[in-house]
Amino acid sequence: MIGRLNHVAIAVPDLAAAVAQYRDTLGAEVRAPQDEPDHGVTVVFIDLPNTKIELLYPLGENSPIAGFLEKNPAGGIHHICYEVEDILAARDRLKASGARVLGSGEPKIGAHGKPVLFLHPKDFNGCLVELEQV
Amino acid sequence: MIGRLNHVAIAVPDLAAAVAQYRDTLGAEVRAPQDEPDHGVTVVFIDLPNTKIELLYPLGENSPIAGFLEKNPAGGIHHICYEVEDILAARDRLKASGARVLGSGEPKIGAHGKPVLFLHPKDFNGCLVELEQV
Repeated sequence: MIGRLNHVAIAVPDLAAAVAQYRDTLGAEVRAPQDEPDHGVTVVFIDLPNTKIELLYPLGENSPIAGFLEKNPAGGIHHICYEVEDILAARDRLKASGARVLGSGEPKIGAHGKPVLFLHPKDFNGCLVELEQV
Repeated sequence: MIGRLNHVAIAVPDLAAAVAQYRDTLGAEVRAPQDEPDHGVTVVFIDLPNTKIELLYPLGENSPIAGFLEKNPAGGIHHICYEVEDILAARDRLKASGARVLGSGEPKIGAHGKPVLFLHPKDFNGCLVELEQV
């Protein structure tokens, strides 16, 4: 059911420093920052040859990243995203297995403009898992 | 400098349950468990089309994963691994930038039989980063 690893998302306390580190020290391809007011984050995509790293930084008052950074002041891996072909079929299969889907259970449009869902970390080895329909 | 994302490593409290979930519920290609006594872990690789997930479970008395699972009883993402062409050149460039290399600073042979190094999470946005020479 799951396909490619679409990205690994890393919440960072200092976006400019993280961008400089990935671009200058690690020599990676770093895109321009992108504000996502609907998601409460500023996102920077880093293109690796086979997948992406997504740097996340809080945007606005109620950013879902703010609490994570309070608990993890140095930053940390926030979630991983797997691609699926049919997000509703994937959701129903996961729910039937007992996994909890976060929020309303209806897909939202993610930072890539595609339908996404998040799964409860407690049901996935402590990892917040995003599914993205591609 | 960094190339492909070689794998995302997830420490799990119940290896059989995690294997069953990835194989049966998520429908992924899961390999047989592999004991790595030198690293104090049992490893299960999951082959995604573009990268791998590495499930980690403690092996033996002094497993480096045991403490992580005590702090994170549900499990969690333990590290991410980037590929590099020349691990000594990568290490020297990172050290020159002020990043700390864990252990002796000399590469060890990792679970794939290739030279690896780990970088200090505090220097990389709270993420434990492994470099693997390919």
